[in-house]
Amino acid sequence: MASKHWKEIVAEKRERQAASVPKEWILTNLPPKDALNVIDFPEKSGLLTEKELEITATHVDVLLEKLATGAWSSVEVTTAFSKRAIIAHQLVNCLTEIFIERALSRAAELDEHLKVTGKNSSNVTPNGSGYSQGYVSWINQYPEKSSVLADILESCGAVLYVKTNIPQTLMWPETFNYVFGRTLNPFNRSLTSGGSSGGEGALIALKGSPLGVGSDIGGSVRIPSAFNGLYGLRPSYGRVPYAGCVNSMEGQDSVPSVLGPLTTSLEGAKRFMKAVVGQTPWLKDPLVVRKPWSEDEYHLSDHGGDGKSLVFGILWHDEVVLPHPPVIRALEHTKQALIDAGHQVVDWKPLKHGALYQAIGGIWSAGAAEDYRVTIKPTGEPLVASMNPGVEDPDYIDSGIPDFRPLADGLSAYQLWQIQKQRRDLRQEYLDHWNATVTSTGTGRPIDAIISPCAAYAAPPHGMNRSANYTMIWNALDYTALVIPTGLSVDPLLDAKKPAHDFFTELDRANHEFYDPATFKDAPLCIQLVGRTLEEEGVIAMGEIVDAALKTKLSNPPL
Amino acid sequence: MASKHWKEIVAEKRERQAASVPKEWILTNLPPKDALNVIDFPEKSGLLTEKELEITATHVDVLLEKLATGAWSSVEVTTAFSKRAIIAHQLVNCLTEIFIERALSRAAELDEHLKVTGKNSSNVTPNGSGYSQGYVSWINQYPEKSSVLADILESCGAVLYVKTNIPQTLMWPETFNYVFGRTLNPFNRSLTSGGSSGGEGALIALKGSPLGVGSDIGGSVRIPSAFNGLYGLRPSYGRVPYAGCVNSMEGQDSVPSVLGPLTTSLEGAKRFMKAVVGQTPWLKDPLVVRKPWSEDEYHLSDHGGDGKSLVFGILWHDEVVLPHPPVIRALEHTKQALIDAGHQVVDWKPLKHGALYQAIGGIWSAGAAEDYRVTIKPTGEPLVASMNPGVEDPDYIDSGIPDFRPLADGLSAYQLWQIQKQRRDLRQEYLDHWNATVTSTGTGRPIDAIISPCAAYAAPPHGMNRSANYTMIWNALDYTALVIPTGLSVDPLLDAKKPAHDFFTELDRANHEFYDPATFKDAPLCIQLVGRTLEEEGVIAMGEIVDAALKTKLSNPPL
Repeated sequence: MASKHWKEIVAEKRERQAASVPKEWILTNLPPKDALNVIDFPEKSGLLTEKELEITATHVDVLLEKLATGAWSSVEVTTAFSKRAIIAHQLVNCLTEIFIERALSRAAELDEHLKVTGKNSSNVTPNGSGYSQGYVSWINQYPEKSSVLADILESCGAVLYVKTNIPQTLMWPETFNYVFGRTLNPFNRSLTSGGSSGGEGALIALKGSPLGVGSDIGGSVRIPSAFNGLYGLRPSYGRVPYAGCVNSMEGQDSVPSVLGPLTTSLEGAKRFMKAVVGQTPWLKDPLVVRKPWSEDEYHLSDHGGDGKSLVFGILWHDEVVLPHPPVIRALEHTKQALIDAGHQVVDWKPLKHGALYQAIGGIWSAGAAEDYRVTIKPTGEPLVASMNPGVEDPDYIDSGIPDFRPLADGLSAYQLWQIQKQRRDLRQEYLDHWNATVTSTGTGRPIDAIISPCAAYAAPPHGMNRSANYTMIWNALDYTALVIPTGLSVDPLLDAKKPAHDFFTELDRANHEFYDPATFKDAPLCIQLVGRTLEEEGVIAMGEIVDAALKTKLSNPPL
Repeated sequence: MASKHWKEIVAEKRERQAASVPKEWILTNLPPKDALNVIDFPEKSGLLTEKELEITATHVDVLLEKLATGAWSSVEVTTAFSKRAIIAHQLVNCLTEIFIERALSRAAELDEHLKVTGKNSSNVTPNGSGYSQGYVSWINQYPEKSSVLADILESCGAVLYVKTNIPQTLMWPETFNYVFGRTLNPFNRSLTSGGSSGGEGALIALKGSPLGVGSDIGGSVRIPSAFNGLYGLRPSYGRVPYAGCVNSMEGQDSVPSVLGPLTTSLEGAKRFMKAVVGQTPWLKDPLVVRKPWSEDEYHLSDHGGDGKSLVFGILWHDEVVLPHPPVIRALEHTKQALIDAGHQVVDWKPLKHGALYQAIGGIWSAGAAEDYRVTIKPTGEPLVASMNPGVEDPDYIDSGIPDFRPLADGLSAYQLWQIQKQRRDLRQEYLDHWNATVTSTGTGRPIDAIISPCAAYAAPPHGMNRSANYTMIWNALDYTALVIPTGLSVDPLLDAKKPAHDFFTELDRANHEFYDPATFKDAPLCIQLVGRTLEEEGVIAMGEIVDAALKTKLSNPPL
């Protein structure tokens, strides 16, 4: 048991973190605190050379080529992204563990290895850095070995240099904890960067990294991707190895967390998935599905084979909460882009979203509160009860507005099984529902994929992201879900508040009332593309089609 | 709520069952009750014609050919197996639902369809027969639609004609319930036919069916296969669709039950798996893994590619209970057969079997007792507390010897998660353990598969099958496991009792003391062949190699 007060443990950790920031990269020309949009600051900071700006503006596929040919050295690339990551951190507080020195030494090894062998990948020794702590009690805990995924990525030539911020418990779609504080949204620092991978989302948006990995049990990869204008993939259960990672609620097997990439390009997500699946991860992690990457499925063998005349179902709302006007605008824009590209877009009925939200929430809360209590007990840190401004003070008392995560009493195992059974039956109903669309597409196939909001809003102000419904529905169904930026962002001129509608629920009313276009200024607008379970290849391929359609539409604005 | 006494509901059900047996197939020349080995009686019964004997002695692959070419009609084949099933039932009490009339009408449709279209498969309407009841409370409950697997099999041309007996709760490796009574082992009626699919195992051993399907959560396909001298496959979680089947402990997602075939030939198991997986079952059942049948894996691409020089690890015992002498003899015989065929056989250390038994038992018992109580409540039938002789009387009081299934108090969801987490970690340890064998094989690969006992004994006397450890270990690890008959059976001359050894545990001592060669006379001896998770193709292919080696050895006895 720790004899130190938890605040002392935090203070020491923060000192160590501060010491890990290279002094020469600490900026004195930072924008004022009330400057909201800082997305372009790294270019203007003066810290990055022209070449470093070029490197950090480069997507994963081109980076890999430049590294493979030796056009750019691993040390150069690692230096450029490390510098930019440190800039990002000073803008939005996105980093936790910083180990640039070790990264540079690993990069130098890779450069040497390339000279000798012509390959820029090699075996690595475990990196042994601490967990990315949302809990004070995880400070000073170090894993015995690297996670399987870290091993795989490093053996492919990846250089790890920082870890990024997450919320305490990880079960919150914003990013604040008592160890590292709050991460801000670089497009508008009065808004949340989302969560749980909010540090990663903010870092990548500021181009402090071309690609990162987050865990997603209810949207933790996709919410930060959506709120920061990135591509983000939630693969199906067991497609990407999770072994060796820690999380809340370990042992909860019914709606497992998965790892997936957040990245600046769809090609990045594809490269990530091909690389990981190509390393036969099922021989390294017993929970990984034995399913090689399928080029057939990537070539849309299950969707007509030519990528033409696809049929997308569009989910406008979940019959629980109507999304805000800019979210609807992004969906309409996507619909038109797909129609312009020769595809069909039909409405997709949500069926029983409310019942699935209840089921998945019931499964988690069956043991979550006990899990959190057990985890915080050794240090006595309080459980974060809100993400509202002011919560940084541990004595903060919440306003009483219902929170994202009510701490319900636990259930018995038998009661949990009854919910899991309901949820299984709902999965069957949704599968039948999808299959039944075959009668309305005219292609002989059911709809090929679903287009859905990522949330009922763009990145909201701190403390206001109290629902992950629009992402966690796909976790509940275990559907492959890919966040794609539309290239649009909230524009108070285009996204005026609408008059009140017939509200589905009290939540719907609250969501409507809370909308004010000016508040959301500059927040990026993304959509989710959703395919079937274990259909990562097909979803990435259809994602490329949607992405191209969106880019074409943006470059050809209407007259 | 039922107002009738449960015994009355049972009596009515038994009357309906008796009425469903074709009168002309009721035999008056049955062997006396004390005739133990009745395996050859169907041939001698006088009820089957020469052609019916030929048909019912035929394995699935040849049957399918004969049906496809029209050499044998579906009506002929259905009649032959139906008659033999009714004979089997009179010998060992293996059937529950009997619907031969409907089967024959379905067979006639198929024959007509073959004439018209050249294909002997067609769409079917749901068959709507009752569940195979181990519970009185399931009597008179009818599913709304067929299971996905029944639909798939019928659409491939299968004709369903009977359902078979199981234990109350299904969670017992013997077959007795208050509705239909006990199923006996046709090789020695004083022995159990195993469970939970004990009715199916006995039926197929008597050639009343060439192939049947059981569910396996801890050995329920493999134990009856092993005790009745059959091939039986436990596929990995989610390879075969389960949707639409009922079971105990629904909603328990961590160690799910799976469906698999029991059959008279390995070709039958292969045909079954190829047919089922070939029907893209993941588009019909949301829990099925999207993984097509892989011919590459069937051709052992992961095992050197030529099926030569494989390396088998052999599990002699689990460090908890040493198997009886005939089981060890079957393992030694298999080892020698494989060496004769040019393969290597090395010892395989059980690592932490005891810990895994505890984990998997803990997961089930977290909610099992409550599940059983809720299920029996509507009718008030007692919970079966033992399978000892005498238990047929519901007022039977057990001897006090520890039973297979102690009804522990339930756990909280959080407690359940802690066990599930331990079990996840054990799965990782076992994977690492398997991989580590790469240093000792000389092939550059870890061992290709494991040879293991099916139980610590051959089919034991009624009431004495109180452990499923040797099968449920593979459920805990989700390894593909195939039961293969060695062609041997217990021979009191060859299988003399051994002197006491240093006992691992009190269970080990009890198991040793309980062995008496004469008791087990004629019980078949099988082994398990175990591969990795979702490696059905490879395990079937390696199974063919093991099966051929065993058959070669049997046909070439040592001088």
